[in-house]
Amino acid sequence: MTATVVTLNNDLHEQMRILGNKARHAYALMAEARNEQKDMVLVEAAMALRAHAPDILAANKKDLEYARGKQLDKAQIDRLTLDEGRIEAMAAGLETIATLPDPVNKKLDEWTRPNGLVLQRVSIPLGVIGVIFESRPNVTSDAAGLSLKAGNAAILRCGSECLHSSQAIVGCLHAGLKAAGLPEDAVQLVPTRDRAAVGEMLTMVGLIDIIIPRGGKSLTKRILDESRIPTIQHLDGNCHTYIHMDADAQMACDVLLNAKMRRVGICGATESLLIDEAIVPTMLPKIADVLSKAGCEMRGDAQARAADQRIKQASDEDWDTEYLAPIISIKAVQDVDEAIEHINRHGSHHTDAIITSDSATARNFLRRVDSAIVMHNSSTQFADGGEFGFGAEIGISTGRLHARGPVGAEQLTTYKYVVHGSGQTRT
Amino acid sequence: MTATVVTLNNDLHEQMRILGNKARHAYALMAEARNEQKDMVLVEAAMALRAHAPDILAANKKDLEYARGKQLDKAQIDRLTLDEGRIEAMAAGLETIATLPDPVNKKLDEWTRPNGLVLQRVSIPLGVIGVIFESRPNVTSDAAGLSLKAGNAAILRCGSECLHSSQAIVGCLHAGLKAAGLPEDAVQLVPTRDRAAVGEMLTMVGLIDIIIPRGGKSLTKRILDESRIPTIQHLDGNCHTYIHMDADAQMACDVLLNAKMRRVGICGATESLLIDEAIVPTMLPKIADVLSKAGCEMRGDAQARAADQRIKQASDEDWDTEYLAPIISIKAVQDVDEAIEHINRHGSHHTDAIITSDSATARNFLRRVDSAIVMHNSSTQFADGGEFGFGAEIGISTGRLHARGPVGAEQLTTYKYVVHGSGQTRT
Repeated sequence: MTATVVTLNNDLHEQMRILGNKARHAYALMAEARNEQKDMVLVEAAMALRAHAPDILAANKKDLEYARGKQLDKAQIDRLTLDEGRIEAMAAGLETIATLPDPVNKKLDEWTRPNGLVLQRVSIPLGVIGVIFESRPNVTSDAAGLSLKAGNAAILRCGSECLHSSQAIVGCLHAGLKAAGLPEDAVQLVPTRDRAAVGEMLTMVGLIDIIIPRGGKSLTKRILDESRIPTIQHLDGNCHTYIHMDADAQMACDVLLNAKMRRVGICGATESLLIDEAIVPTMLPKIADVLSKAGCEMRGDAQARAADQRIKQASDEDWDTEYLAPIISIKAVQDVDEAIEHINRHGSHHTDAIITSDSATARNFLRRVDSAIVMHNSSTQFADGGEFGFGAEIGISTGRLHARGPVGAEQLTTYKYVVHGSGQTRT
Repeated sequence: MTATVVTLNNDLHEQMRILGNKARHAYALMAEARNEQKDMVLVEAAMALRAHAPDILAANKKDLEYARGKQLDKAQIDRLTLDEGRIEAMAAGLETIATLPDPVNKKLDEWTRPNGLVLQRVSIPLGVIGVIFESRPNVTSDAAGLSLKAGNAAILRCGSECLHSSQAIVGCLHAGLKAAGLPEDAVQLVPTRDRAAVGEMLTMVGLIDIIIPRGGKSLTKRILDESRIPTIQHLDGNCHTYIHMDADAQMACDVLLNAKMRRVGICGATESLLIDEAIVPTMLPKIADVLSKAGCEMRGDAQARAADQRIKQASDEDWDTEYLAPIISIKAVQDVDEAIEHINRHGSHHTDAIITSDSATARNFLRRVDSAIVMHNSSTQFADGGEFGFGAEIGISTGRLHARGPVGAEQLTTYKYVVHGSGQTRT
């Protein structure tokens, strides 16, 4: 659309592979970078973000103008929009990542075999990481910062509406890389809005080691279906809060309100309340008070509706729905076993919580609910890399392989075995 | 072919999904099994293998008769053939797995956040594991044993020539499961030779969590290309031994001979020798003596051939070839940097070793060679789950995600986060 957007149409396939080869060369150097060097990248990039805030805001303005011609909803426009505060948050995010310990070259394990061989398992970078995200400029710096901290190279593909903003932000990361004597190609932004570039990324076997989609369910599903490269999966967050009969009533109300309504658009928001039928008549009306005052629509089963008229009738579909909106489904369950069974069937293996004062019931729930994050007496909205102490996150993995839960710098590493011998041969 | 082979042709798609659902139910029970129960399965199955050795040998005889009608080479027939010793080795393998510590319910990490939330990372089973292997009966018990030890359910698809043998072995695992009060469906063998069953397995998203191919390169490549389910990759083992100028000559000869010739058909066998050009004239003839006495064909570059006439000319292809035969490629390199560069370009990220007395050079090599296993002064043939102390292995992963190197019981686990609160809400 403007001079800064490179046209790759002539030979997208070839151009994307050039990008991939540059990333592989940069990765080889990043993998050997000292921690102080990597931290310098992050700190210098944070300074550049602050220094170039006016340029970034100008680029963002161009993106917002471009976006006005498209059918974005209010939430999408909000996520696309930058201001001084959001730029500061990006800079602070990079500085936080810089304070983390080096996730690579860590001796994860060491043991000696009877023949005298000493085996070590040592963490190393994952390689070249492809991040495909929607039009959220801040993902640019979060994803690049986490990738670099773990010694990786990143190829970023942003949503078409935030290309100018992401370019300006990547410019600041390049300034950081340059200042630290590391290759700028360690962070590359796909410089075209052409959607075919995503298809190219998904087939760059041998050049990209892992694809991380970050966005809505349809984007993610397409990527998981089409990718020939391993992915870290984050499909949806149909999270549950289960209130057990031995729950403290006040805690249950406070935690549930926070879990559902603090922010309704994040993947860790509770979408479904399960409640023991024994306490439905006494506790549910109190909960319904709190939720309806906060503006939350309630959809429940027959038992729930019998206890409170403000609760509408839920359909079967509701149990499987991630609303990302001020709506909650409510189901009465016989006991913790039914709650666990319901969550494992209808949930998305993201984050599920129990509120109870009974520790044996809590243990049962925590062990048998098959989700990346299980919680006792706390809000599901804590499902977040920052809240976990990871500095930031690229997403929350609901898959079972490699990384589960918040994906921070440590999750962007793998390992190798280092074997020290003194001439051993195998018999 | 016989009464024991079920015909699934009528509705293979449906039948395979029934298998998958049974596995998921079995997994839910396996995940909760105590370690003593899982060990009892293994010990009882080992006893059953010994007790039913005559039946297993009879089944194997049927397989060998069936195989004679097909074009199997000598090595394939050898791998298919069972005898008392091999059955005893399978039984002993299961008993070894039983002695390992429980790989699940381990607290991998624990930390407390400023708000008082206590976070734990706890190991859990991976889920339902699909293992697709060639006609090697012993893989049946190794794969099932490792899967069960880690609390998983396994769906095994064996090569068509070993169906009777695998069925007999699975019968022994069922006896173990029954004795321990665990569901027999935790180990299921695909009961048909129909190749379409593999295609079905690769698309059973939501029923199978991970596919592990174990076999030759063409089988593995097909599976990696077609699978819609995450895989643990093991393509090939183009392993290198690099002899540095500061290597002890005797150690270099001994280790290289073992690395190449102890068994030529395993993935950890050295396929390529790199040697510093400074020592080519003095050391290579000694090495060539040892190798040629052992019956190893040598293919080298110009410098290598100048040092010893027994070395034939290597083509460019040789540097990328996994011979799995008594053949070795030999290349002179300027220094450790060229060796590292060559290995990272031509190797398969499996196992590579350096022989040197210089520890700084060794460190450089171990750090910069980008392989699952890197070794100093030892034979690449130690690349093996048993030799690592894992009891057994399903294979050696050359991918970067989840598991790298030997895949034992611990690699067949994942983790969840368990968060303990006291009513915390997020601000």
